[in-house]
Amino acid sequence: MTSIFDDFYDADDLVSHLTQSIQYSIQAGGKRIRPLFLLETLQAFGVSITTEHLKVAGAVELIHTSSLIHDDLPAMDNDDFRRGKPTNHKVFGEAQAILAGDALLLDPYLLLANADLPSGVVVALVRELALASGSHGMVAGQVLDMDGETQTLTFEQLKQIHALKTGKMLTFPFVAAGLIAQQSDEVILSLRNLGEKVGQAFQIRDDILDVTATFDQIGKTPGKDEAADKSTYIKLLDLAGAKAELSANLVAAENILAELSRTTQLVPDSILKQIERLKID
Amino acid sequence: MTSIFDDFYDADDLVSHLTQSIQYSIQAGGKRIRPLFLLETLQAFGVSITTEHLKVAGAVELIHTSSLIHDDLPAMDNDDFRRGKPTNHKVFGEAQAILAGDALLLDPYLLLANADLPSGVVVALVRELALASGSHGMVAGQVLDMDGETQTLTFEQLKQIHALKTGKMLTFPFVAAGLIAQQSDEVILSLRNLGEKVGQAFQIRDDILDVTATFDQIGKTPGKDEAADKSTYIKLLDLAGAKAELSANLVAAENILAELSRTTQLVPDSILKQIERLKID
Repeated sequence: MTSIFDDFYDADDLVSHLTQSIQYSIQAGGKRIRPLFLLETLQAFGVSITTEHLKVAGAVELIHTSSLIHDDLPAMDNDDFRRGKPTNHKVFGEAQAILAGDALLLDPYLLLANADLPSGVVVALVRELALASGSHGMVAGQVLDMDGETQTLTFEQLKQIHALKTGKMLTFPFVAAGLIAQQSDEVILSLRNLGEKVGQAFQIRDDILDVTATFDQIGKTPGKDEAADKSTYIKLLDLAGAKAELSANLVAAENILAELSRTTQLVPDSILKQIERLKID
Repeated sequence: MTSIFDDFYDADDLVSHLTQSIQYSIQAGGKRIRPLFLLETLQAFGVSITTEHLKVAGAVELIHTSSLIHDDLPAMDNDDFRRGKPTNHKVFGEAQAILAGDALLLDPYLLLANADLPSGVVVALVRELALASGSHGMVAGQVLDMDGETQTLTFEQLKQIHALKTGKMLTFPFVAAGLIAQQSDEVILSLRNLGEKVGQAFQIRDDILDVTATFDQIGKTPGKDEAADKSTYIKLLDLAGAKAELSANLVAAENILAELSRTTQLVPDSILKQIERLKID
């Protein structure tokens, strides 16, 4: 994964002051969960991973990284730390952080266009990524999340916000793998449902960790949701209820995988292992 | 052009608070010079304009609009007015303006992917737009521009900044028209050269208007470059020199068009009329 980003951003003809701030946030690491899901789903379909697939996996990670940089800005969540390191604007200044985030929304489409895959597949990937990230997805969810900060949300409203804010970008890897593996519309739909369950599990887990984990465990200041009086799954369902909801989503995801392994050539073991990691006792 | 944006952003399933702020900046208007160049170049090649072409033209305008919203932010140029209206963040707040700008970098790729053109052409358009806008283009130019604010630049450095910051996005329409009209690599190269000349003319003209025009004529506060002690073509070449440089670029553009009209079926009249409008006595 890292080599894809290095190949892309170490090019001599790029502006080093920009690529330095971009690389700072890319290399801050994180779990690379979106690329991992994409590559493991591809492998589950029996596809051998090539550099072309890494470009697609890299594209979704870059957009995710942009959202973290912009979310941390003073005008947004005003966070000083991310993944245990000072946030991008703390190191490079606000203007540079805005621009690094902007580049990280645009460059992924160059990665997709440069992926040596059938043109029809690339166009479908571009469509899916744009739907997942722009005003049909992540950014819309961020707006709803911001608007919701001052209100008490219902469970359905909270689910809707997260479905857009984080769900669609977590669904993309599964759908993208299906598109690359040239699966039927029906299989793609199952992969979309799988991604939605995983995405929801992911956000519930995040809310749980915000109240149960330490700075070292999650690499950012815990307890921020409660301090900001944000609507969370914990606030709406309490801790036990949130854990039950997390568990229900993971079981649903496992069931979809079981069904896919019956109806297609998919071997679900590595994806199941990833899902296993999302569990909290 | 407006109908494309309305069709795209009036959809019921979108978040109205986001689309409202997006539409505010889109509808602020401006000259729509990038879409115009694209559509006129297509027509010059004898292509009848369809909705699919309007989607491509719309895509470049949306990215341009995003750059204006983000440029105006307090952390960037801190502008209160744009095109004679309060800037986006003045009306909707900084966080919303950042997110509106983000959506306007991502949504254009959905427009491209949804354009019913041959897949190979769409992939080439995605590549060109990403190269023109991200860390190979506009955003890189914005970083160089910002870095250069505190220095005295050479003519070559200033040209390089503008080639990235505004040049590539002004070149895209000409190249995109060539790709859609399925012209040869050689013709595409001529169109790229044409776009570069037009782009340079455009920026020199902007610098000239900053010292010679009124608020009503340009819809923004004039004299800002001088007040900020920015390197401009005026500062490096003086007013007469900048006018001569503008004129030289426009003549070069006209010569490329004349050559293209000799070697291809291109009828350059409408493009020449646009170029005519860039002239300053």
